[in-house]
Amino acid sequence: MTQAPFNVVDLIRRKRDGAAHSAGELAALIAAYTRGDVPDYQMAAWLMAVVWRGMTAEETSALTLAMADSGARLNIRKYMTPVADKHSTGGVGDKLTLIVVPLVAACGLPVAKMSGRGLGHTGGTIDKLEAIPGMRTDLSRRQLLYRLRAHGLAVAAQSTDLAPADGKLYALRDVTATIESIPLIAASIMSKKLAIGPSHLLLDVKVGSGAFMKTADDARELARLMVRAGAAAGIHTVAMLTAMEQPLGDAVGNALEVAEAIATLRGKGPADVTELALHEAETLLAISGIVADEAEGRQRAEQAIADGRALAKLAEVVAAQGGDATVITAPAKLPQAPWIERVTAPEAGYIAAIDAEAVGRVAGQLGAGRQRKGDVIDPAVGLLLRAKVGAHLTQGDPLVELHARSREEAEAMRETLLAAYRWSAQPPAPQPLLLERIEG
Amino acid sequence: MTQAPFNVVDLIRRKRDGAAHSAGELAALIAAYTRGDVPDYQMAAWLMAVVWRGMTAEETSALTLAMADSGARLNIRKYMTPVADKHSTGGVGDKLTLIVVPLVAACGLPVAKMSGRGLGHTGGTIDKLEAIPGMRTDLSRRQLLYRLRAHGLAVAAQSTDLAPADGKLYALRDVTATIESIPLIAASIMSKKLAIGPSHLLLDVKVGSGAFMKTADDARELARLMVRAGAAAGIHTVAMLTAMEQPLGDAVGNALEVAEAIATLRGKGPADVTELALHEAETLLAISGIVADEAEGRQRAEQAIADGRALAKLAEVVAAQGGDATVITAPAKLPQAPWIERVTAPEAGYIAAIDAEAVGRVAGQLGAGRQRKGDVIDPAVGLLLRAKVGAHLTQGDPLVELHARSREEAEAMRETLLAAYRWSAQPPAPQPLLLERIEG
Repeated sequence: MTQAPFNVVDLIRRKRDGAAHSAGELAALIAAYTRGDVPDYQMAAWLMAVVWRGMTAEETSALTLAMADSGARLNIRKYMTPVADKHSTGGVGDKLTLIVVPLVAACGLPVAKMSGRGLGHTGGTIDKLEAIPGMRTDLSRRQLLYRLRAHGLAVAAQSTDLAPADGKLYALRDVTATIESIPLIAASIMSKKLAIGPSHLLLDVKVGSGAFMKTADDARELARLMVRAGAAAGIHTVAMLTAMEQPLGDAVGNALEVAEAIATLRGKGPADVTELALHEAETLLAISGIVADEAEGRQRAEQAIADGRALAKLAEVVAAQGGDATVITAPAKLPQAPWIERVTAPEAGYIAAIDAEAVGRVAGQLGAGRQRKGDVIDPAVGLLLRAKVGAHLTQGDPLVELHARSREEAEAMRETLLAAYRWSAQPPAPQPLLLERIEG
Repeated sequence: MTQAPFNVVDLIRRKRDGAAHSAGELAALIAAYTRGDVPDYQMAAWLMAVVWRGMTAEETSALTLAMADSGARLNIRKYMTPVADKHSTGGVGDKLTLIVVPLVAACGLPVAKMSGRGLGHTGGTIDKLEAIPGMRTDLSRRQLLYRLRAHGLAVAAQSTDLAPADGKLYALRDVTATIESIPLIAASIMSKKLAIGPSHLLLDVKVGSGAFMKTADDARELARLMVRAGAAAGIHTVAMLTAMEQPLGDAVGNALEVAEAIATLRGKGPADVTELALHEAETLLAISGIVADEAEGRQRAEQAIADGRALAKLAEVVAAQGGDATVITAPAKLPQAPWIERVTAPEAGYIAAIDAEAVGRVAGQLGAGRQRKGDVIDPAVGLLLRAKVGAHLTQGDPLVELHARSREEAEAMRETLLAAYRWSAQPPAPQPLLLERIEG
């Protein structure tokens, strides 16, 4: 077995026994692992010890910084300030980034948005944008900065040299059952944010059935660790905990979600999506000092939707990045599924719950998501919910449209989909969408 | 990352979440790891999860069997029965195997003793035997069986193809801070016993400062897991917990311990060594059915010492394995250290405690032990305790002889050695040597 340049076994032993590491130890560990001087088997043992023993906020911040430092750092706030980033931990039907990013850019807050191609029931932001014909997101750093200066907005797929330690660690965690550690999740997300280096960052931490964090306690811990790690690196970071029990909005699936984002930017979006988008926009505008407070931020955001500037900003950036901007005014040009199966209410009553995770799995089965890195996503498929929690339906009323590659694939999903619904004779108590705000 | 032929990630995840594995899963895991189909990084994560979550007795037995099955099994009880093995978890001054094995062989119980070259303050049984000039312990299986038939006793260094999964796992545990798991320790020890396959096995589990198990609870758990694993494989296994707070006997160091073993086989050994050796011998003779009960076993063992047959058996086997058997009658021929430093009592009073671990470290520093695989052991160096716990000394009375390579090396140890002693004006309460007996 090879020897590392410092005592890795002792480091593993101390984490195994519940001790906290110093910032210097974590920096040395990550640097040595990135160079290949610490082998995967030692890192795997250390990762499992971290899953077991956890990490303090100080350790998480130090790990995050060490991971960010494993590659070149873009530090966009050196070129302009304020400059914002917005990140969601992901949920079923979460197309908020597509809305909030052009919205605040239209209000004068530059945004540099870099996203990974996540695994999940549906694609990530980059996959959704790529449902627009011609849209290119593989920007070099120089192109990203140029787009950012020219349009106040650039949306790019994360380059692999951004926080390379994270890529290496994530691949190892994926095959060693060490994904499920809140400090490691926080460090993974934030290391890439630190490497991009905005001045302001809004984190949307989803909680519930359709999210990675199933409980408010876990989501709060994740949010706090990320806010601390952002602050420790000089990024003004605010996190909000938002509900992910039922899907967000009506559309689940890549092109369907782009269409819903466009509708929202035209002022015709679903109530929950519109409310959350305005809240995120007002928060970003207020924390970055573009406006005096949230109330002014909301006014500015509502105005940008009403006068078409927000939608125009999206069209401008789509065009600038090679996409067919006419889809923005004519969303029917987006990829369409060959078969639309209309599912109706099997009984009369109130919709008491729609299990977001189950709906997400249906979307994934239809082809909207990726199980493994490199899987091809079908942009056209997905679901359109015709009624949400709290609606009262009569038997036979429209419930869901399944957008599928074939009638067979749609029908195969019908029972699974219906099992995601809970019905009630009484109207369910309304559930808040915004749960908590966490800042440094 | 490579893929294993079954879902290793799921196995790691379930252990991480505290589940128990089936025997089939453990067999598949160990077989795949031995073949190289499960990479070290997945095994390391699984090992850390085992350190965290532990294993049931059933899991430990199944893991032990899977490890034994990773190579060819000798199964000596197929060639003769009864045939015994005796194993100690190791302690400072523990030369019992050197005494008990020829003693029971002289009483008619064949013993096939295979030992590893352990790491520790002093060498293992094989290292101690190799202090005898010319003694060879690298026997092939055929030679081992031949010696066993011819002499009723064979002592051999463990071949590396015995339970190869254990060798591979131990090397990985050593560099991933996953040594300290009682089920893994039990499986490591017992996998080699299962591969040798005696009909009867006596385990001496040491407890205390000078042992790997520091508490009776840990030692009891280890003993129970090993007894269960032995029984599950059809080996009649008995464990005894014995005290290892002060060194066992007077000699610590390889040649010094051989000399003490010879003295004990002549009926002139220290009281604690003699008592423990007779107890182990009577137990082995009784469980294997050579005698009707322990009392008869003790009589037979005492007789074999009194009439010289036990010592003659040792001389016979040493000669058969190429060693200079004249050292057995003239132990002065054993390697002698060039410098003997006499350390005297620094104060008057009763010796209340002698920290065995500290004494072991002194022996290690003098050159008696091995820190890393492949380190060369000096057979001549060590310590001879001139007084044990409970003795009353006057200032200046002989306390210890340090057998060293030089005056400087001896003097450098003097303070460290004296710090291992605790003195008292009152006689300390006597501590039992035999703590507990555990069987299936």
